[in-house]
Order: sequence, then C-alpha cells, then structure tokens
Amino acid sequence: MTVAIVGIGLIGGSFALALKDKGIAKKVIGVEANEEHKRKALSLQLVDEVKELDEAVKESDLVFLAVPVDAVQKLLPAVLDKVDKQVVMDAGSTKEGIIEAIKEHPKRGRFVGTHPMWGTEYSGPEAAVRGAFEGKATVICNKEESDKDAVETVETIYRKLGMRFVYMNAQAHDVHVAYVSHISHITSFALANTVLEKEREEDAIFELASGGFESTVRLAKSNPLTWASIFMQNKENVLDVLNEHISQLRKFKACLEKENYEYLEELMVNANKIKRIIK
Amino acid sequence: MTVAIVGIGLIGGSFALALKDKGIAKKVIGVEANEEHKRKALSLQLVDEVKELDEAVKESDLVFLAVPVDAVQKLLPAVLDKVDKQVVMDAGSTKEGIIEAIKEHPKRGRFVGTHPMWGTEYSGPEAAVRGAFEGKATVICNKEESDKDAVETVETIYRKLGMRFVYMNAQAHDVHVAYVSHISHITSFALANTVLEKEREEDAIFELASGGFESTVRLAKSNPLTWASIFMQNKENVLDVLNEHISQLRKFKACLEKENYEYLEELMVNANKIKRIIK
Repeated sequence: MTVAIVGIGLIGGSFALALKDKGIAKKVIGVEANEEHKRKALSLQLVDEVKELDEAVKESDLVFLAVPVDAVQKLLPAVLDKVDKQVVMDAGSTKEGIIEAIKEHPKRGRFVGTHPMWGTEYSGPEAAVRGAFEGKATVICNKEESDKDAVETVETIYRKLGMRFVYMNAQAHDVHVAYVSHISHITSFALANTVLEKEREEDAIFELASGGFESTVRLAKSNPLTWASIFMQNKENVLDVLNEHISQLRKFKACLEKENYEYLEELMVNANKIKRIIK
Repeated sequence: MTVAIVGIGLIGGSFALALKDKGIAKKVIGVEANEEHKRKALSLQLVDEVKELDEAVKESDLVFLAVPVDAVQKLLPAVLDKVDKQVVMDAGSTKEGIIEAIKEHPKRGRFVGTHPMWGTEYSGPEAAVRGAFEGKATVICNKEESDKDAVETVETIYRKLGMRFVYMNAQAHDVHVAYVSHISHITSFALANTVLEKEREEDAIFELASGGFESTVRLAKSNPLTWASIFMQNKENVLDVLNEHISQLRKFKACLEKENYEYLEELMVNANKIKRIIK
C-alpha cells in the first residue's frame, strides 16, 4: 500500500521506517511543513518523496497523522473532507479532543484514533528509530465509531509491527495517560528547572549526577511544542494528577519539617508497591 | 589486604565483589546484623566469612562502613575507638553529620569520608553487582582531616575500581547531592504514591506505562530505611530543594489553570537546558 505520513518527526519517522522494514508499505509519502525536516526526512530515506497534503492524501491508501495533538485536531476534519476510501489514523497522546472534533463528520468512519505507547525524549526526523514499536502496547479508541475495514487495516499494521492492543474510549484513555505519561513529563521538566535554578556549579552536577538523576530528568529533554500541545489538550486530567502529586510531595515535606520519620518511611513503603506494577 | 565490610547490602556487597575481582583484598570479612543477609552474603560468596565487629576490625587493614547513614554516624566513633593503624572509610550518601560526629576523635585521621556515586533501586546482598563502580565518580570529603596514608589507601582502591575523584568539603557535598540525587528519589517516591493513590485500575497502568513512566518512577522501588536515614541526615538541604521543586511544579500548574501556553512552553524550553549537563 501507499501511506502518507503527515509530520515526519520522532513518531512519523519511526512509523515510516517500520512500514518499510515490515514490507507493509510499498511507498511512503511524507507531508512536512518544516523545510529542514523535509530535507532530513528525504536524506535519511525515511520517506520516498515529499508532497503537499492534498496530493499525498489522494495517492494514498492510508494517512497517518503524526503532528502535535492540537494540530491533529485542527487538521483531521480537513483531511477527512478529502478522503474517499482511504483510512486515516493518528498517533496522538490525547484522544478526546481529536475524536470530538470529527464526531459528526460524514467520513468519521474512515478515521481510527490510536496511541502507540512508545516515544523517546528526542524529536525530529533524526530521532526516528528502527523497530520502535515492537513489543509495545497501542491504544485504539472508540473503535465502534470507525468503519470495520478501517479498524482491520489499522490492526493488521500494528500487529505486523509487533504491538499488542488495548481498547478504550477516548475519555478513559486521556485519564490513564495523564497518570502513566503526562505527569512523568511534568515532574521531569520541573525537576530539571529546580536543579538549573538552584545549582549554579554545573560541573558539580555533571560530576556527581549518576543513574538515578539521569533517569528522573531524562524526559526534560522532550520537545516543548509537542508537550505544550498535549498538556493543553489534556488540561483537566493533567491538573487533577498534578494537584495530587503536589499534595504527595507536601507529605514528604511535612514529614521532614516535623521530623516524623516513621510516617516518612511509611510513605516510601507505600511507594514500593509500584514494584507490583513496574518490574 | 584484609577488609572488613560492615553492612553487606547493595553497596557493601558490590564493594566486596569489586575488591576480590580487582585483586585488592585477599580476604573479605563481613559484619552483618541481619541474619538473613548474613546467610545470603555467605551463600552468594560476597564475603569469605562473617564475624562480630570487634574481631573483624582487629583482623582487618581496612574497615568499610556500608550501613544506613544514621547508623554510620552512630557506629563510627565506636569503630575508631577500636582502631590502631587500620583505615576506616564509609560510602554514605551524606557526609556532614558523619564527619561532625568524629571531629574531635583522637583517631579522626584514620577515617576517610567518601561517597561513591553509584547505586540502584534494589537492596540487600542479592542486589550486589559486579563491576558496579567502574567509570563512576567518587567524592572524598574533608581530605585534609585524614591521615595522608589513609587517603592514599582509599584513593588507590577507588582508582583500581576505575573511579574518578571529586574532592569537596562535607557541607558542599550534602548540598550538591540534595540536588542531583536526593530530590530525584523524593519525586520518584511521590510520583509512585500519586499513581497508586489515584489510579485503581492497575491493569491499565501496566498496559500503558512505557519507558518514560518507568524511568521516572524507578527510584520509588528504593529501600525506605536507607532513604529515611539519608533524608533525616540531609534534612535542611533536602527541604530547600523540595520547596524549590514544589514551586516549579506550581508554575506548571498556574500555566495550565490560566491557559498560559506561551509561558508553559517557555518553562519546558528552559528545562531542555539540562541537555547541556546530561547527555
């Protein structure tokens, strides 16, 4: 099949590589507004050619949207306007706003809302990774609102990529990802700012920082545009979790201030329960 | 040389392995209060034998203290009481309280306060890792208060383990580690509690959690006793950094509440500067 990939960055680029590696796409057409990304995507051979959106949609069997989530929400109705029998899918980290935006669209059935649970802290075409999605989960949202053949096309592709499926409605998805992904990014960004704010002797950080610091602060390297868009789209859920997180941090603070080391230990014993979930 | 290791857990056990692997110690004597750890340390062959503290100190050239930092602080004066020409060193994550506790001790010179910047979220003898310290930094504090030969002994060992040196006074050390290690642990513990508190459908977490979540929450598996002891010892510095971290999180919160996405992006662009420090 011919696949149009709109946005050839970390996700779009990695998806393009996987489509070729697994023999799923004969031809991959990139759609990319950023001139530098366009050049890089071509020189890295992530895509066979770069075209304008209209032409790319017309020539493709599948359109994969991998732009920031607010851009997906704006772009999707226009893409569906151009669609005949093509399947349109996205890979956005939020789902409710996107799915709401096309709820009444006559071509709603051609769209399948998905969220492959993979990413890194890097961005742009040069961040694309081979074998990226292998062994990971992908969420498919509001499956019943999509045409059966469209869902089958999408499932077949993800299956060939080695992914397992989680089916959810968009609302539930957005709540869950606020907990297992979005809050991690906020804490990491905030932790980086904490250290950068207070710690001026950078050599000291560099010398002393070991694996623990690197692992908690790694996500702070993530793309601000991508994440501003996600946080905007998932504002209510993110605020919920963020409030809870701040109140959890306040418990640690209170324990230290009051020298209540028994409760401090209790908080950490409770946190250890995460072992049951994350091996 | 013969080395006594007091506390044969993650750090003590890994140090024991390294001493043998590098041909530094002919004999390693373990001192361990926990009966189960004692048995495990012997069956895993981390130590050659287990003895009582008095005997172990008497028979050794070097005593390595790898118990929680509050225990080091209590134990160290008693160990120095028993010492003749032996060198005593520790591996504690805080240094000010420990060094203060023996400031006036007649055998002060035999002690070298160190902090090898390596660890994992696991604990106990079975968490011991071969080649653990290779390529990492180790801090040596208040070097000038230790006897020259004692410092040389310790430096020679760490050099053979493949470590590089950072020299600092105990106060500066405790400030820096609050930023590059202790706060990471608190955020990770608090993040685990946030998710465990709010997210009851554990299967959903398990299925959707990808690398980002795992990396920020990994340290929440750490030993509560070890870390309660560290936070107690470094209370003032940790509170300082924790307050700053909470205020950084509040900035994210305010941006979302006020839908100030420009400033939200700015916060993340600033956080990206961590790239200069952590590759």
